Amino acid sequence: MDIFKFEARKHDGRRFIQYGRTPFPADFSFSSEGLARPADWRAPSLRYHAMRDEWVAISTSRNTRPFLPPKEYCPLCPQRDPAFPTEIPVSDRVYELAAFENMFPALAPGEQGPGRCEVVLYSPHHEGTLGGESLEQIEALLHVWQDRSRSLAAEGHTQVFIFENKGAEVGVTLHHPHGQIYAFNHVPPFVAREHDAARAHYVRTGECHICSLAHAEISDGSRVVIETPTVVAHVPFAARYPYEVHVTTRAHRPLFEHLEPQELTDLALVLKRLIFKYDGLFGFPMPYIMAHHQSASTEPNDPTYHWHLEFYPPYRSRDKLKYLAGVESGTGFFVNDTLPEDKAAELRAIAVPF
Amino acid sequence: MDIFKFEARKHDGRRFIQYGRTPFPADFSFSSEGLARPADWRAPSLRYHAMRDEWVAISTSRNTRPFLPPKEYCPLCPQRDPAFPTEIPVSDRVYELAAFENMFPALAPGEQGPGRCEVVLYSPHHEGTLGGESLEQIEALLHVWQDRSRSLAAEGHTQVFIFENKGAEVGVTLHHPHGQIYAFNHVPPFVAREHDAARAHYVRTGECHICSLAHAEISDGSRVVIETPTVVAHVPFAARYPYEVHVTTRAHRPLFEHLEPQELTDLALVLKRLIFKYDGLFGFPMPYIMAHHQSASTEPNDPTYHWHLEFYPPYRSRDKLKYLAGVESGTGFFVNDTLPEDKAAELRAIAVPF
Repeated sequence: MDIFKFEARKHDGRRFIQYGRTPFPADFSFSSEGLARPADWRAPSLRYHAMRDEWVAISTSRNTRPFLPPKEYCPLCPQRDPAFPTEIPVSDRVYELAAFENMFPALAPGEQGPGRCEVVLYSPHHEGTLGGESLEQIEALLHVWQDRSRSLAAEGHTQVFIFENKGAEVGVTLHHPHGQIYAFNHVPPFVAREHDAARAHYVRTGECHICSLAHAEISDGSRVVIETPTVVAHVPFAARYPYEVHVTTRAHRPLFEHLEPQELTDLALVLKRLIFKYDGLFGFPMPYIMAHHQSASTEPNDPTYHWHLEFYPPYRSRDKLKYLAGVESGTGFFVNDTLPEDKAAELRAIAVPF
Repeated sequence: MDIFKFEARKHDGRRFIQYGRTPFPADFSFSSEGLARPADWRAPSLRYHAMRDEWVAISTSRNTRPFLPPKEYCPLCPQRDPAFPTEIPVSDRVYELAAFENMFPALAPGEQGPGRCEVVLYSPHHEGTLGGESLEQIEALLHVWQDRSRSLAAEGHTQVFIFENKGAEVGVTLHHPHGQIYAFNHVPPFVAREHDAARAHYVRTGECHICSLAHAEISDGSRVVIETPTVVAHVPFAARYPYEVHVTTRAHRPLFEHLEPQELTDLALVLKRLIFKYDGLFGFPMPYIMAHHQSASTEPNDPTYHWHLEFYPPYRSRDKLKYLAGVESGTGFFVNDTLPEDKAAELRAIAVPF
């Protein structure tokens, strides 16, 4: 699949990139100014939390971000009327996917809050979800992720964290189908912890930790949900959320940009199938957090750790949410009320028509 | 303050301790059997999450626990009718406070899931909150916490984690005023991380990390919310939740059991004032997670780390919750949309009549 892109700057200086499966015309440009940062916008900053040895973003401008606006005021829809500017000031041309710098970032370039935050639009259409997109559109999104991941890493960011929040239950403030990217200049706590465990495993065994775990899951089989020739989805042995699913490649791919064309095609199919299964569990679209983890090593081909996706749906049954309450929030120790093998069987049992 | 206790076993073997400010009669005993574990109850187990190098509790019996039952079926109220057994089978005697083993534990004695989970009842009265109790009742609770903490540590548990979930927004399943205790046989992730940072600080400076941070906050003053001669409450410099507050002693107290009588009296006052201020912010009772952290060192008087309480209220404004969405859940990196100094000033400005 070929992906074409058109790079520009918004009028307030933010980066804006449109992506499509056909080339953009030579005279392609914005038709209007679109939304811009307000005059009183304040850059975010980082504070060091000494007790926990971690960084916290303080971003007061985020408190003014739109909160579940009605559809006709969606800031992620293509702009139709200059009186209602949106983030997509392309009223007269069709686009397929886009990435742009977040108006309300937690990380921004500069000494006080290094890093970048981007929004990734999955579709120009307001109604929709990742799983509802065509396989071709999902595969195009994977190319966009590869492009953003490669570009942001090339700019020196240590960890390009791609993610999606889906559903009001996990705190979504805009329903238009989209995800986000945080490009960190440090390695955030959970990624650092996974790297520490992976290095210890590598020293002990000479194998990539994620490869070893994935191969063990495939060989055991009891928690595998979806298998393709190159990509596999499974409920982890020590799942922290009842319907937690991890997706990774059989082959060692430290960074998301390392995935090869066939792997992207298989991954698009796995994502579409997984989300279809999630939506079939309880008869409503399943909310989830989807988090990419990739190597934060300075080695170009980290032998210890490899890219994977983690899905955390917040429901523990049709009408009950799993809360991160006192124990999880206070100690980091997770309690799962369900047996991972049971949940994998439930997900496997939901037939997909594609 | 003197606290008396009456120790017994429930008919299913669970430990049950009643506490009161006056001695129990010599012939004091249960009047009925009360609630017992169902026949199909299964002990929880721990699974090792290799990728994150942490333990996860798998506790399928918890999925059957009561979910916000109506007041007349509250299992934490004193039993009135043997046809409706509760956890407090003392229909004919008054008690003030109690602690008992959780019917649906995430940790239970035994090889497969070492540790213990207890429930701590703050009051026999169903309607009420910690902040609404008298100063004497709160101080009595602090003595109960000291007793449970000392007893569980003496049994060999590495980290006695005392906490409270308040409000449906943080996942409470029973409204009767109560808290919980998890007695771990390992050091859970966040406590371990705080200890690592504390040891590094101690090696560098020769000072307890928590003492240093508390003294810096007191000296700066801009984030202090409540000061007493021995106990101080402040919004931390790098607060992760908008209305996060930490409470600790000015003097070095590695374990909660080390707090002296005047410190308990001051702590009761600080808790009552803090919860009053929280409830005054938005005109409704503020939900929160309250988490104790204490030394997990095997040294009896850990010079590096000391007891403190952390409060995490889930609201970021009157009508918006702070969610632990993709970034927080996927990387452990927190984004706070507010300035800690502003939130401390808001809390300071709420006058308390006591």
